[in-house]
Amino acid sequence: MQKSKKPIDSLTVMTNIVLPNETNSLRNLFGGELLSRMDRAASISATRHCERRVVTASVNHVSFNHPIPEGGIVVLESKVSRAFSTSMEIYVDVWLDDPINQTKIHTNEGIYTFVAVDEFNRPIPIPAIEPETEEEVKRFDAALRRKELSLILSGRMKPADSVELKKLFAGEIEI
Amino acid sequence: MQKSKKPIDSLTVMTNIVLPNETNSLRNLFGGELLSRMDRAASISATRHCERRVVTASVNHVSFNHPIPEGGIVVLESKVSRAFSTSMEIYVDVWLDDPINQTKIHTNEGIYTFVAVDEFNRPIPIPAIEPETEEEVKRFDAALRRKELSLILSGRMKPADSVELKKLFAGEIEI
Amino acid sequence: MQKSKKPIDSLTVMTNIVLPNETNSLRNLFGGELLSRMDRAASISATRHCERRVVTASVNHVSFNHPIPEGGIVVLESKVSRAFSTSMEIYVDVWLDDPINQTKIHTNEGIYTFVAVDEFNRPIPIPAIEPETEEEVKRFDAALRRKELSLILSGRMKPADSVELKKLFAGEIEI
Amino acid sequence: MQKSKKPIDSLTVMTNIVLPNETNSLRNLFGGELLSRMDRAASISATRHCERRVVTASVNHVSFNHPIPEGGIVVLESKVSRAFSTSMEIYVDVWLDDPINQTKIHTNEGIYTFVAVDEFNRPIPIPAIEPETEEEVKRFDAALRRKELSLILSGRMKPADSVELKKLFAGEIEI
Amino acid sequence: MQKSKKPIDSLTVMTNIVLPNETNSLRNLFGGELLSRMDRAASISATRHCERRVVTASVNHVSFNHPIPEGGIVVLESKVSRAFSTSMEIYVDVWLDDPINQTKIHTNEGIYTFVAVDEFNRPIPIPAIEPETEEEVKRFDAALRRKELSLILSGRMKPADSVELKKLFAGEIEI
Amino acid sequence: MQKSKKPIDSLTVMTNIVLPNETNSLRNLFGGELLSRMDRAASISATRHCERRVVTASVNHVSFNHPIPEGGIVVLESKVSRAFSTSMEIYVDVWLDDPINQTKIHTNEGIYTFVAVDEFNRPIPIPAIEPETEEEVKRFDAALRRKELSLILSGRMKPADSVELKKLFAGEIEI
Repeated sequence: MQKSKKPIDSLTVMTNIVLPNETNSLRNLFGGELLSRMDRAASISATRHCERRVVTASVNHVSFNHPIPEGGIVVLESKVSRAFSTSMEIYVDVWLDDPINQTKIHTNEGIYTFVAVDEFNRPIPIPAIEPETEEEVKRFDAALRRKELSLILSGRMKPADSVELKKLFAGEIEI
Repeated sequence: MQKSKKPIDSLTVMTNIVLPNETNSLRNLFGGELLSRMDRAASISATRHCERRVVTASVNHVSFNHPIPEGGIVVLESKVSRAFSTSMEIYVDVWLDDPINQTKIHTNEGIYTFVAVDEFNRPIPIPAIEPETEEEVKRFDAALRRKELSLILSGRMKPADSVELKKLFAGEIEI
Repeated sequence: MQKSKKPIDSLTVMTNIVLPNETNSLRNLFGGELLSRMDRAASISATRHCERRVVTASVNHVSFNHPIPEGGIVVLESKVSRAFSTSMEIYVDVWLDDPINQTKIHTNEGIYTFVAVDEFNRPIPIPAIEPETEEEVKRFDAALRRKELSLILSGRMKPADSVELKKLFAGEIEI
Repeated sequence: MQKSKKPIDSLTVMTNIVLPNETNSLRNLFGGELLSRMDRAASISATRHCERRVVTASVNHVSFNHPIPEGGIVVLESKVSRAFSTSMEIYVDVWLDDPINQTKIHTNEGIYTFVAVDEFNRPIPIPAIEPETEEEVKRFDAALRRKELSLILSGRMKPADSVELKKLFAGEIEI
Repeated sequence: MQKSKKPIDSLTVMTNIVLPNETNSLRNLFGGELLSRMDRAASISATRHCERRVVTASVNHVSFNHPIPEGGIVVLESKVSRAFSTSMEIYVDVWLDDPINQTKIHTNEGIYTFVAVDEFNRPIPIPAIEPETEEEVKRFDAALRRKELSLILSGRMKPADSVELKKLFAGEIEI
Repeated sequence: MQKSKKPIDSLTVMTNIVLPNETNSLRNLFGGELLSRMDRAASISATRHCERRVVTASVNHVSFNHPIPEGGIVVLESKVSRAFSTSMEIYVDVWLDDPINQTKIHTNEGIYTFVAVDEFNRPIPIPAIEPETEEEVKRFDAALRRKELSLILSGRMKPADSVELKKLFAGEIEI
């Protein structure tokens, strides 16, 4: 088993320009294309964390807050936010960087789950993660709630068996 | 305001073959490419339901249960599962259809949220939906829980203000 | 030898949006891209009919009646129209579906020939087909004329040896 | 009205390598991709002949005689074979060129119809063509038969009104 | 006129996975695709340095030292290496990063020239650059020799008028 | 060892239309896409000259003189300009051909170096080349200067050991 790692160890930066063949008919970056880029950035972060081959298990949530126009510079930054026994959660932040007008807008946020697999595609243990910054700690904590939620909504966990969510609905903790 | 519709009215079928340029290095359909196709199918369903221009608001969840090999026939079927005041939830089911071996495997399930917009990109009211089949009714009911969840996790609703989720954690209802 | 099938058994629906990277400089769906989609839809229909691996033998005719604009929803529907001993004819209809303006225009019609092959790429027998609807019967009948025509124009059949075409030019039958 | 031209005036050569993202699951050039390239080569020939903007009217016939493997060098050569009043027929020949084994195989032959249009998309007159080589003369003659055939099969001409085809079925001429 | 900048101000990191549709028939990243990515990374660096719209003037040199296999993680890092009056030189380094085997290989090095332009496409002045690291200083110095060379080889400067290159051939300086 | 060849023996013509998915946000052919096409044309010329498998060694220089608009007809012509012992230089000329306005503009010029390799990727000897036209002779002569220059700038040759460049800076020869 590998020793624990920090989120910064899996930081992946993917900068690119939005070309016409990646836009929808409003001339903004096509949602599907963005989802595809986020998936690739997340998979590189997952590989860097585990040092093993990884596969996408699920897309947990992706928000679309602001359109990204053709010709815009898009910056994706992804990091592992929490490692469980054989799966890990990856956070991907997306910015629209405009050096000409000197603005940088946070356009999207995505959360993906990956598992590391051996040569027979069987899940294998994943190094633990130690969050460092305030935001990394916040995302680390929330990851457990998201995992419980996902298990409950898919019928694989009973609400009564949850730890974090029960506290949340009992008013014992806050988001 | 348009009159209510049925899920079948927005049914969109997207059949296609997995070509080599859509695969990852394991020769399976690349996750990002699949997310992109699901987004397009969902947007067509949303347009058919609203008869207005629509934009992706969020990807709520996408599961990856089974790889889809190169050369495989992939069938996406998407339908509006619930309409709220200005947003709607779309369910996309993905199958791997193999006519040669006579098998059809359910490989993925995705849930997207779209909003209908006017010419100034302002959200506009959406026709109500009346689920018909047992599965449509089940998805219609669960959509409210998912919406509350999304609002809570993003800090826009307090757990105490939820209706469905509170019942769920109080043990009053079951998934 | 498999038992005969109906055209509906091979029905393949391929719905998609026209993205900017699929258009020509007039912002309409590029002809070559449409031909490519029709070929894929036809090959799925052929596989569904034969339950064997298939290869394109020829494109017999594709008409371009109406341009399909960027952002439009394109629906391809393909079905086997006639099965010969080792080849089959596939009909592909293309519609531009506009849910916002509530119109649906028939933009293209294409006729492809496929053969089913074994693992050594040798042609293998194909199940017979029994047309059901009036249009299916009409296309079934015309398929023989088209086949004779193709053989005559490529020098593989003498006009005198044709059955259907001779009748047509003798004024015994009508299109 | 422009003066007549020769087929060689519209000769268009399109040489390219088959990359992995252009192949089917048998690692041969995908039929749809080839149809797309042929359409582009034909449209350049049509533009060179008319010196006007052109649009695809129909694909009349494309044969698939020999697969083109990944990494292969593909050479398309297209020329206008016959000009009618406002439409023209284009012949596209495809070769697989293998300089390492010193072979060159004729893999496909395609026949397309284009029309030249003015700024309002109205068809405009096309310069006449004077075939020079034996093959050009043969294709020029056959083009009329193909045109009559197309009109008859689409119901826009009665068999009795044809000139060339009637002679063919009466045994007066040969292919 | 803007104040001078440092190379780090224009640093652009573009990380990505090599997908099957970006490889040649040896299953390595296709040279043309790599050239295209380098061009995009360089254009972002140029924009970040000038804060104006930029266009590619020339590719000065790109070396191909090591193939990049399908599935590999490719990291491009580009920075402005020298600014002249209206043009600037950009250096792009390419690495193949393999977290599983814990290796990182320098596979390519590319040098591009960009110009900043105003709304009428006329070249405009560019901020000066102050190299910081040893490698940045070395590349800054060499950039002048490369510029002289380019002018001489294109016949726009006489060898006798060069400053740096004359010294080099007179044995006064060394690479 | 093969006998010597002429530049015309490796002539490769690649004609194509600029489609929207190949353009930048100014609606001109994207620089990276053009570099990619030039690389493919050059590799075909190299294969035709050597009759062996070839790999790109470097891009020596590519100029961007004139933008190529969407919908434009682009013609690439590449030929081997000089063969050294195990490497060869390829020249690629690019034209924008406009049959409607009857103009043909020389937009780009690119110089690539390829090596021929055996099945173990080891360089193998290359046939000599005999330039025929005035331009071919000029490019043949200049290729040696470019090769010396490349060796000097990369530190693999001392200026004093050069043949052609020393003469150039000594004023003994002219470009």
